Order: sequence, then C-alpha cells, then structure tokens
Amino acid sequence: MNEKQLAGEKAASYVQDGMVVGLGTGSTVYWTILKIAEMVQNGLSITGVPTSKETEKLALEHGIPLIALEEVSSIDLTIDGADELNDELTLIKGGGGALLREKIIAYHSTHMIVVADSSKVVSDLGTFPLPVEVVPFGYQKTLDVLQDMGCEPSIRSKNDSLFITDNGNYIVDCAFRSIPYPSTLHERINQIPGVVDNGLFIGYAEKAIIGNGSTITFLEK
Amino acid sequence: MNEKQLAGEKAASYVQDGMVVGLGTGSTVYWTILKIAEMVQNGLSITGVPTSKETEKLALEHGIPLIALEEVSSIDLTIDGADELNDELTLIKGGGGALLREKIIAYHSTHMIVVADSSKVVSDLGTFPLPVEVVPFGYQKTLDVLQDMGCEPSIRSKNDSLFITDNGNYIVDCAFRSIPYPSTLHERINQIPGVVDNGLFIGYAEKAIIGNGSTITFLEK
Repeated sequence: MNEKQLAGEKAASYVQDGMVVGLGTGSTVYWTILKIAEMVQNGLSITGVPTSKETEKLALEHGIPLIALEEVSSIDLTIDGADELNDELTLIKGGGGALLREKIIAYHSTHMIVVADSSKVVSDLGTFPLPVEVVPFGYQKTLDVLQDMGCEPSIRSKNDSLFITDNGNYIVDCAFRSIPYPSTLHERINQIPGVVDNGLFIGYAEKAIIGNGSTITFLEK
Repeated sequence: MNEKQLAGEKAASYVQDGMVVGLGTGSTVYWTILKIAEMVQNGLSITGVPTSKETEKLALEHGIPLIALEEVSSIDLTIDGADELNDELTLIKGGGGALLREKIIAYHSTHMIVVADSSKVVSDLGTFPLPVEVVPFGYQKTLDVLQDMGCEPSIRSKNDSLFITDNGNYIVDCAFRSIPYPSTLHERINQIPGVVDNGLFIGYAEKAIIGNGSTITFLEK
C-alpha cells in the first residue's frame, strides 16, 4: 500500500454515521472516497458534498449519496488533500485549480482533515507555486501586482489556451520560493482588486494524516 | 445646471493633454464624458479606459478614443461617481453593479477624482446598502456569513432573475445601516471565501467634486 492509499483510507475512519462529509479532490482523497464507499455498502449512512465535478462522478459511481452545499445547514467533516503543508497545518492548495470551491466547502465545515503523502510536508511553504484565482478583466495588471509582492507569477495554461476555473476565472501560479508569513501574504493578496482568492488555507485543517513509508504520521493542532 | 452636471463638467477641467483617463459610469460622470468629448473635438489628445460597456458606448459615440486596460502601462486619472462618500473620501460604489471593474481601474490609476451630487455626501456610511460581489457557488452560505457580520443581506435581482455582473458573479446588497470602521469591514468581507470584492473604495479618491445647489464644493485629502 503506498503512502497516498495509507493516508487516504485512514481518514475514512473518522467518518461517522449520520455525518455530512465534504469530499475533496485528488489522488490521496481518492482512496478516502473508495473507503467511504465501502463503508456505505456495509451500512454506513452519510451524505457527501463534492468539491469538484471529478469527485462528484467518482462518488456517484461508487454509491455515495450526495447533496449540494446550499441544501445543508453545515458540513460536519471535510477530508481533502494539499499540495504542501507545514506543521502548523497551513496548506497550499489549488494545483488542480479547484481551490475556491474547496475553500468555500472547508470554510463551512465544522472539522477538516487533510490527507497527503510525506512529500507534501515542508518546513517552509512556497516551493510549490501558490495558485491565485483572478478575474479575467485586467488580469495582466493583477499579475504585475502579484509580481511586485515578490513572486514570479505565471498564468496557468491548459492545452494551449488559458486554464479556466469552474467559476470562469484564471489561475496565476505564484512562485514565492518561501512564504515565511502566510497570514500576512493571504490578506495582502486577497485585498488586490481582481483577485478572487488564493490557495493558502490557514486555520482550516485540525488534523493531517500523512502516509510515511509504510506507516502513518499524524499532525494535530 | 443641476448638481450632477455642475460636478461632472468641472471634473473634466482636470484632464490634461496626453493623459490616459479612466472613465467611470453613472449619471454624474456622464457629464464629465460629454465635456471631455467637447474638449477632444477642440483638439485635446487623450485616451480613455472605460469601466463599463455603457461608458464605452457613450465615449465612442462622442468621439473619445479608447484603449483597453491591458494595453496601457498605467492610468493617469480616473473620474468616477459614488453612491455614498464621507469626508475622508471613502466611497461606497456598486449600485450599478460594476464595482469590480471600477475598482480594478481605480487601483491602477495614479489619481482618482470622484464626482457626485450633494445627496451622496454622508457623515456615516452605510445607509446605502454595501454591494458585495460573490461567486455563484454556495452563494446562500456566503450570504449567511455576511448576515453574521451584522447586516441585512439581499441578493440582487433584475427582471425576475438574479443580477449577473460582467464577471459572471452575483451581487449581495448588504444593509449595514452604519459602517463606523470601513477598513476593518472591507478586510473582513474580502477574507470570506466566495466573496470577490466589495463596494468600499478606501484610499482611492484624493478629491471629490460635489454639486451643491448652484455651486461646487471640493473635498480633498
């Protein structure tokens, strides 16, 4: 069993009967979803809220009942992956381009568990370029402002055209190399007119389940 | 001459030859645009950056040469209206739904002048409900968060369906009644996942030209 599967499946053990569960997106939470599907087949009663079309498809194929965010009063637990995380459980997300939907769902969740393989744990965030979702209008100017904040920004492309998020926006990948003050950076970036949100998740996750070789490491707040 | 025309036309006198000028939207800046058009006909050479389709149309009809935001390095002066302003030149904008485009253009402008009739000047901001641009995904939840911040929020409609901005988002009109700390509120609102931006313009305008009966009042920073 690889690190992703180890972490992903372990996270499913935190899902309890009757819960509304936010279902993340990615190659580690993939294993969580399969495990939850198995538990549902064995009688567990939960409802999932998917963070992407991809997860929606996977969950439905495996028999997990789903509900839209607007139809629940709150989400009990969200399980999602991360592109980077440090030991304060600050995350960088958005490599898949779904950071905004993921953040909205995490924000409305009582608890959040992050799952990852050991390569995602870093002491200093920022080697992974920070994804920033920006509106198309004037995006080149927004890119200039991000550059002035000390990063090397590049607009994300896919198949020779600009990548477009589920919300109709662009993604700028901002190579900061090092992010010593994530909270300050998060606030500064979100104050830029034209920025919708960024991939820093601060104060969301309260537990990380990390596949580490053939064992599991836990980080908690 | 009414207050709007008085203020709007006066603002045009700040436009100088060779400038790139951000052209706002609304019933007061309408007069600015007509005046600038007259100056252009008399030999003034400027280029305008419109904040809306409406302004684009008006400017082109009257012979003002236009350019897109991405094609200029910066804007020398933006002239725009406001739904409310106080004597610190903090503005509430967005009654017309174009707050984001207007803010992006103001942000990239070296100078900003606001024009208004005297009814827009208030000692305490917030009687005019603050427009907040939100992404459609989970907007009912975003509305709940805005309500928890102490306002009465209502999603904006137009012709029996939800109003959609130029950026494909919704507008929530937030009746705060009173906004004693605009900077704090601005930051808090923009940190909510799902919020794109809000109608508070703080630190943008450096001069307000107010039509006041048959005279003009200036507010400066």
